[in-house]
Amino acid sequence: MVVINRAALLLVANVVAVVCRRHDATPYLDTTLSPAERATDLLGRMTWEEKVGQLGGVRRAFGTAGGKPTFNRTTYETTRTTQNGQIGYGPQLNWANDLLPLMNNLRAEHLNDSRLGIPYIIVADSVNGLWVSGGTLFPGTISMASSWNLPLYEQVAAAMRDENLAMGVHWVLSPEVDVIQDPRNGRNGEMYGEDSYLVGEFATRYIKTMQERDENGWVKVATTIKHFVFGGGSGGVNRASMFGGINHILNDLAPPYRKAIEEARPLSLMASYSSVDGVPLSINRHLLQDVLRGTLGFEGLIMSDANAIEYLFTESKVASSREDAAVKALAAGLEHELHPGGRGLFSDLRDPKYEAEPDVVSLVDESVRAFLEIKFATGMFERPLPSVESMKATLRNERHLELNRNITRESLVMLKNDGLLPLDRDEIGAGGGRGKIAVLGPYADIINAGNYAPADPLDRRYGNSIRLSFEKELGVDSIIYAQGTSTILPSYVGDGSADEQAIAEAVEAAKAAGLAVIVLGSGFGNFDQKFINNERTDTEGYAHADLGFPGRQQQLLDAVLDAGVPTVLVMNAGQVFVLDNSTMSRCRAIFHVWLAGEYTGDALVETLLGDINPSGKLTVTMPQHNGAFPVAYDLLPSDGVGGFGSALAYDWHWPQLTRKPPLAFGFGLSYTTFSMSDAEVSLRKRQNHKVVSVSVTLTNAGNIVGKEVVQLYYRPRYTTIEFPVMKLIRFAKVELTPGDSKRVALEVPVRELGYFVDGQWNIDHGEYSFWVGSSSREEDLTLLNVTIPSFG
Amino acid sequence: MVVINRAALLLVANVVAVVCRRHDATPYLDTTLSPAERATDLLGRMTWEEKVGQLGGVRRAFGTAGGKPTFNRTTYETTRTTQNGQIGYGPQLNWANDLLPLMNNLRAEHLNDSRLGIPYIIVADSVNGLWVSGGTLFPGTISMASSWNLPLYEQVAAAMRDENLAMGVHWVLSPEVDVIQDPRNGRNGEMYGEDSYLVGEFATRYIKTMQERDENGWVKVATTIKHFVFGGGSGGVNRASMFGGINHILNDLAPPYRKAIEEARPLSLMASYSSVDGVPLSINRHLLQDVLRGTLGFEGLIMSDANAIEYLFTESKVASSREDAAVKALAAGLEHELHPGGRGLFSDLRDPKYEAEPDVVSLVDESVRAFLEIKFATGMFERPLPSVESMKATLRNERHLELNRNITRESLVMLKNDGLLPLDRDEIGAGGGRGKIAVLGPYADIINAGNYAPADPLDRRYGNSIRLSFEKELGVDSIIYAQGTSTILPSYVGDGSADEQAIAEAVEAAKAAGLAVIVLGSGFGNFDQKFINNERTDTEGYAHADLGFPGRQQQLLDAVLDAGVPTVLVMNAGQVFVLDNSTMSRCRAIFHVWLAGEYTGDALVETLLGDINPSGKLTVTMPQHNGAFPVAYDLLPSDGVGGFGSALAYDWHWPQLTRKPPLAFGFGLSYTTFSMSDAEVSLRKRQNHKVVSVSVTLTNAGNIVGKEVVQLYYRPRYTTIEFPVMKLIRFAKVELTPGDSKRVALEVPVRELGYFVDGQWNIDHGEYSFWVGSSSREEDLTLLNVTIPSFG
Repeated sequence: MVVINRAALLLVANVVAVVCRRHDATPYLDTTLSPAERATDLLGRMTWEEKVGQLGGVRRAFGTAGGKPTFNRTTYETTRTTQNGQIGYGPQLNWANDLLPLMNNLRAEHLNDSRLGIPYIIVADSVNGLWVSGGTLFPGTISMASSWNLPLYEQVAAAMRDENLAMGVHWVLSPEVDVIQDPRNGRNGEMYGEDSYLVGEFATRYIKTMQERDENGWVKVATTIKHFVFGGGSGGVNRASMFGGINHILNDLAPPYRKAIEEARPLSLMASYSSVDGVPLSINRHLLQDVLRGTLGFEGLIMSDANAIEYLFTESKVASSREDAAVKALAAGLEHELHPGGRGLFSDLRDPKYEAEPDVVSLVDESVRAFLEIKFATGMFERPLPSVESMKATLRNERHLELNRNITRESLVMLKNDGLLPLDRDEIGAGGGRGKIAVLGPYADIINAGNYAPADPLDRRYGNSIRLSFEKELGVDSIIYAQGTSTILPSYVGDGSADEQAIAEAVEAAKAAGLAVIVLGSGFGNFDQKFINNERTDTEGYAHADLGFPGRQQQLLDAVLDAGVPTVLVMNAGQVFVLDNSTMSRCRAIFHVWLAGEYTGDALVETLLGDINPSGKLTVTMPQHNGAFPVAYDLLPSDGVGGFGSALAYDWHWPQLTRKPPLAFGFGLSYTTFSMSDAEVSLRKRQNHKVVSVSVTLTNAGNIVGKEVVQLYYRPRYTTIEFPVMKLIRFAKVELTPGDSKRVALEVPVRELGYFVDGQWNIDHGEYSFWVGSSSREEDLTLLNVTIPSFG
Repeated sequence: MVVINRAALLLVANVVAVVCRRHDATPYLDTTLSPAERATDLLGRMTWEEKVGQLGGVRRAFGTAGGKPTFNRTTYETTRTTQNGQIGYGPQLNWANDLLPLMNNLRAEHLNDSRLGIPYIIVADSVNGLWVSGGTLFPGTISMASSWNLPLYEQVAAAMRDENLAMGVHWVLSPEVDVIQDPRNGRNGEMYGEDSYLVGEFATRYIKTMQERDENGWVKVATTIKHFVFGGGSGGVNRASMFGGINHILNDLAPPYRKAIEEARPLSLMASYSSVDGVPLSINRHLLQDVLRGTLGFEGLIMSDANAIEYLFTESKVASSREDAAVKALAAGLEHELHPGGRGLFSDLRDPKYEAEPDVVSLVDESVRAFLEIKFATGMFERPLPSVESMKATLRNERHLELNRNITRESLVMLKNDGLLPLDRDEIGAGGGRGKIAVLGPYADIINAGNYAPADPLDRRYGNSIRLSFEKELGVDSIIYAQGTSTILPSYVGDGSADEQAIAEAVEAAKAAGLAVIVLGSGFGNFDQKFINNERTDTEGYAHADLGFPGRQQQLLDAVLDAGVPTVLVMNAGQVFVLDNSTMSRCRAIFHVWLAGEYTGDALVETLLGDINPSGKLTVTMPQHNGAFPVAYDLLPSDGVGGFGSALAYDWHWPQLTRKPPLAFGFGLSYTTFSMSDAEVSLRKRQNHKVVSVSVTLTNAGNIVGKEVVQLYYRPRYTTIEFPVMKLIRFAKVELTPGDSKRVALEVPVRELGYFVDGQWNIDHGEYSFWVGSSSREEDLTLLNVTIPSFG
């Protein structure tokens, strides 16, 4: 245990004492009482200013300089005087080793200063794992979802949780369950995918795992399900407006919330930045109260997104002052404010005039009570501070690194392979082969893990680049590296003259090697100021109208392809790209590795060499053309029909464009061949409810071990309102050795087959279609019909 | 009067008699009674089958072969047995001269056959005017709106009305008041523009003019306001789903309906194809009853779009059979079915079982009553059949042609002119000049007036192409024409080899002439089968993901520009195009002539030569990049903010893209220079209400006469829900001679400044911003602030 000063010493003594005894004469210190009882008691003892203080926090306690944390005492004290509920670590390129002692110090000091002994709770995002440097750098959310491996994801979530715990983080601002609706949104890489069922499955496991209770009965890490409710704003812009419609909200966007609330009870929820039908979520009483509290049954804390309350006044202009914004947000149901820098808006409620307003008092009381419950539930009043020793033993331990390797291996998605892969070691490089590999492109020698990854893409401490993994595996002499374009942050407006030479060098490298692996992508870096600029692409704050590769990357690819060199294209980004016909046909193999974390390079090289058989599947459809969206496999029936030409001519006028392009949701290739046979559907009774049972025999008909994802989709033949042409309802990832078969059975309670109509759950009876197969593409599916009679 | 057979003779005799006497013992024949009273009486006399028959009609009475109408007696009789409320002319490339006698014959025969003497009413679209060949070919809707000249548009609408009357058309399926929301929608050329106020102004004048009463008190032509409610379906696809949200519906899409219903009372309304929030409009009781009948107060007939009821079963699958679809549509409030070919779905209601269902009977009765009211109101029971003599004297009379020339001249929008224009006659061709003009491009020698234009683009009988107008004006020897690409319907997939030669020829022509006018566009032809194919672009049934010029037109343009020849780019289409930086900077002048009808060529040539000073303004914003949409000047405040880079970097990540691109709503250039000065705003009392009065002095500071559009925009500073950054609220087109000034005053009642919040009209009090100027661009506007106090 780290002891920094007298205050901390006192704290530690107190805490240990509390943990040992159970009853206390002061109810809020009595650990035998429930969090709700303790919160109610404590609330009754608090002054108005103490209450308002709990509505916000000090999210960025530290700064950074020269790779080390800095601390500004004046700023800190100014902030915590008025907002002191939670605290955050701040800049993510600071290192855990440096931060923990400093944070322990601040926490102890603050507790000592607190009249009633109310501790901070540390809050942090947790996307790729720990939100400061020094933890295991897991893949981004869309990468992990591409594994379609829920049990493995649970283990990864446990590792992420334990690394947070080791840093004293007991509240994460994750998971992000926004359903991808617009390929232009720069945050899609933070999301699981385009399907609400798949998102709900992953998110629920994340929440359950994070919120697991320890031996004291304390929730390990409280989670925040977010952003209620979002999927893509106007133009693909993060904070832009969204359309409304209660059926759309409940059926397209809310299912992950519904599932998570019912099955995993996330302790908090973050309202989205967007306005829905003109009403920003921060003041959207209808969606926060009627829908979220009412229809969806959420009982936890509702918090704001960063600065969202301020934006009511400064951006959407639905409040005429900071104070007006605070009062409106409180009245709508926001209970806690996330305000990264400076004075939060809820702080204005300290004005004594508000203590005289019963409505405001009641809302503040309820907000503080809900927040204190989280602190009691997570044991913040009793837990000892984390020790540096425990932190060192936890972060990046062997088990975590192994889990990271495993999920990265399963998250790479192979989209094309004409037989070029796997590469034969004996034909290349150090193993005695004669050839070399040209490793090309601006994303070949960096770590591109997303803007919630606490990693500098150019800093080798965060993992191997693809180039380095190749060099380690095959020897430096077997690899010819060329960046191919002049900048990592490609400029759209530049005349590209500097690139001409770089492209020419890349082509020469490809010709000399005889084989090219070209890594293209988008996005670079995280929230650190050094990565923020006008050339940035993808990631939060940057929507992209153009779905091609930014800058001159396509020209680089075309030049290599024009040279006739066998080429493997690797995409490394949180977004989908438009692959033109020439790219699709001329690249010999294509991968999307998304934002795969520190083992991107290792896992890709293992896969290209055949040591690992790829098993990732797309969780989002790749559009065929700029502007040719939305594309998602679960479009509505009327979205894919019409027109006066042939059926093919419709959708968008270019004949080869379709609403269901070939690189579709659920699609991904393997080195082995799977077949499915003897698909059956039946209606069965299980306890008190009916289930649809679908089974199919999966066979590995190829020569190597591999994993396949058996996917089950459905739709009622006729519906009350429009229903997607098909919806995913179950999936299972199955490993089979060559020649082996397995009967895979998937069961779905009939009650799950419904959908909301004007806020009421509706289940259609009659004919249903079920499809089972290896992707959402018609050619990969077997259709099964079943009639579901009314049980009324 | 045309008399074809005995039946018609009888009819004519009867009709004349009816017109002369006023009272009749049979109430429904008594012209002194109101249409409602007569309809009620007639309804009471009708059998169930007669009633159901009125729910549909024979929309395509004729076919076409060799340019002449054909008639299939069997098909006709089969149809009219079960659906006989209205009749349509059918194929629009048949000619009025041929059609009128045939139609008169059918009408007379049908009336003679009718037990109760219930006549047909002829229904037709009326976009470019008459919906068969032989009338004046006016510009498409977006062209006429680009004139911003409401008084002139009223005169055009009167001419269109009179040509319809001359053909016996007393019910038009226009105006289309859909507010343009998505640049990919192939029907945008049928719409007025992106602004709901402007759409409402034009539409209301169309309706008032069409529905003017004649000397007998009869409505001349009943109108159909459509499509309730639409603006752009998913992906820009016409029949695809739309999002919901009552604020969006009422504030963004419904204003033209609200204005038209209050001020012009259109007699019918067409429900849109789309589903809104999952519920197709054809069964959307909430929108048709609560919103349309309730909030918006519509009292006329609600009809289906073509085949829309069938699509409930075959496409959106919210009905399990044709009959189910018919019953659901009827129950939701559809009262009349548009079913172009074959047996309509409402015909299934003939089954006697429905006569035993009081709910169905009541709905059918109300539907028939509403429809008969239109027939009585338009005088269908009394009017004589139109004579061929009158038709010949009306169609294409001098006044109509002059109006057409005038509105075409005002509808051309000049987007760039670096001083090249106007061209000096003395420098070109036949006038004694030495130079020539190369007239280039696949749209230079056709008439491209939209798919509701009854015109074959290649048939010279429908007007001059741009090439022909040039040749007539300057002499054949002054013009070098080259098509430049091999097809009118450019192929996206073709390798373009055939075009290489054509492009080279065009470049040679440009070089030889020394000046190029290059005409690019999209769309070709109308609903005639010969124009329906997979290569078609734009127009109904064809959305376009790509907003560039279809086919190899951009390559043609680039090749001409590369050759260094001074070039005028002319766009001829119903859509916006993305003009890349190179096009914008290298073209010396740019026009969008939209779908300007038979005088496209004449008006353009007059304008290029300076005989006419252009005065058109965009009614829809031109996006800057594929995928860089929505773009409209009236975006919501939160749609244009955010991001971590500079403000410029936001929206979409390419630095030069913005939500408010320079070729914006309201923008258009003139050959003269207008200035506005001394702008003032004040709050005044007018009778019983307060008005905001804005005045500004407009001065023609240039050397030639010209017209400028004074535009007034506003927004409350703070609003209850999100409100656009600015909204158009008044405009006036003003003509000034050089050096002249005029004080232009625009008044807006305060009650008009509100918007709907959850279905309630809301007016914010407090600070307001008004902007007056020549376009929606900030640099063209003067800001005026005014405070509107609460009058409560």
